[in-house]
Amino acid sequence: MPNTLSHEITLTPAFHDLDPMNVVWHGNYLRYFEQARCALLQQIDYDYPQMCASGYAWPIVDVRVKYVRPLRYGQPVKVRATFVEWENRLRIDYEMRDAASGERLTKGHSIQVAVDMVTQEMQYVSPPVLLQRLGVSS
Amino acid sequence: MPNTLSHEITLTPAFHDLDPMNVVWHGNYLRYFEQARCALLQQIDYDYPQMCASGYAWPIVDVRVKYVRPLRYGQPVKVRATFVEWENRLRIDYEMRDAASGERLTKGHSIQVAVDMVTQEMQYVSPPVLLQRLGVSS
Amino acid sequence: MPNTLSHEITLTPAFHDLDPMNVVWHGNYLRYFEQARCALLQQIDYDYPQMCASGYAWPIVDVRVKYVRPLRYGQPVKVRATFVEWENRLRIDYEMRDAASGERLTKGHSIQVAVDMVTQEMQYVSPPVLLQRLGVSS
Amino acid sequence: MPNTLSHEITLTPAFHDLDPMNVVWHGNYLRYFEQARCALLQQIDYDYPQMCASGYAWPIVDVRVKYVRPLRYGQPVKVRATFVEWENRLRIDYEMRDAASGERLTKGHSIQVAVDMVTQEMQYVSPPVLLQRLGVSS
Repeated sequence: MPNTLSHEITLTPAFHDLDPMNVVWHGNYLRYFEQARCALLQQIDYDYPQMCASGYAWPIVDVRVKYVRPLRYGQPVKVRATFVEWENRLRIDYEMRDAASGERLTKGHSIQVAVDMVTQEMQYVSPPVLLQRLGVSS
Repeated sequence: MPNTLSHEITLTPAFHDLDPMNVVWHGNYLRYFEQARCALLQQIDYDYPQMCASGYAWPIVDVRVKYVRPLRYGQPVKVRATFVEWENRLRIDYEMRDAASGERLTKGHSIQVAVDMVTQEMQYVSPPVLLQRLGVSS
Repeated sequence: MPNTLSHEITLTPAFHDLDPMNVVWHGNYLRYFEQARCALLQQIDYDYPQMCASGYAWPIVDVRVKYVRPLRYGQPVKVRATFVEWENRLRIDYEMRDAASGERLTKGHSIQVAVDMVTQEMQYVSPPVLLQRLGVSS
Repeated sequence: MPNTLSHEITLTPAFHDLDPMNVVWHGNYLRYFEQARCALLQQIDYDYPQMCASGYAWPIVDVRVKYVRPLRYGQPVKVRATFVEWENRLRIDYEMRDAASGERLTKGHSIQVAVDMVTQEMQYVSPPVLLQRLGVSS
């Protein structure tokens, strides 16, 4: 079992993230998810540069976002990313909460699969490097 | 039944849509979906400005994207948007195909609900204006 | 003279800010400038929400960016924003430096003018509210 | 002298390009400029993929945008890009006009310099490949 199954960052939406309804445009949530995902992957030393160095790209093959409450300019928000699956693909779940009240604002997930950067072949079993970083036996 | 249940646009990814893997960054697909959604809504004269004029905002409450093949710079792509549900919420499905080969690249959906712009109350039944524009009896 | 003529933030480029050359896409610098500008304006309690409340929009009418060195993924960067003109228009200069070495990476400026939100008329002299917030006599 | 000194595209701002003032966010103009620049470079068969194939990257070292009138949702806009300098660096000027009225909305420029992709050295004279594509004697 990994020591760091979950990680949380705090961010505040910028002016350029807003749309004409004065709330964060729905597509920008994927940028917030990515910031939390990269921070989580840094905890196991397997963020984007380390992925490349290991010979695998990890393209996203599936994302979902469920919007519960709108996000507003300058509102501090906590984004929690959690490893949920890793054996055959990497699934990370996300939850966004208002930093002050703890009220849930959003939830979602992303699924990534390993692709060998030389052969361009998709891996149907996660390569050992991911399991080693997660501290699970392969 | 609406006359225009479905609509298709053609677009080509721009340089600024690419990420370091030289493919379109996954979050930018929501911008492509939105372009197809707005073009579809224009077919029934109920795009963003008409929504505002009707007194309802239609925030997105759920999106999903399943990525089948990567998109590349300058690759012509067809994006089809189709009305799937409208009675209680507006569900639109999306499919992206390579314009030359017809190969499927992506599929996904979005779900929107009507919110009264005065009371800020979410509507659990779609307001008559949507059904009229769609040409379905309410 | 304002007490806070200048303000500095630190940020690190995200994965989605990169382009295929593996450096930050040049257009994203305007998002970094905006984050520094909003932080500076918060120091005088005249950020975007306070601008709206004062009855003036402050659209940007001129921007310039001079790129000295590329920005890379995860590189901590300091962005300094400085008030340079305020009597007839608001000019803010920007300078980005590598947080570790202090090496200069970018410089630029933005110019904004006040527009009365009721009459939509551009103001050729800055409204008193800006000068009051800046602590300069009008 | 190049046959195609200038090229024009037509585009319409998308919903996700707008900010809370219901106009296009100022930073998105650099995306419109880029679309016009790439279309211009395609006229001389020297767009981003051909640049890479020729062994040179052409990073942008200077951009300027002067905003004359706001851009609105769905407003057809013509963006003209024109080669202005090429001997030592590549300067392209931009002009945006309302497609219906011809009213000028924006002008600006970008400056790029060639960088040898192997040595990473900046070229103080444009490499022959650019001049050949432009049809000027080097």
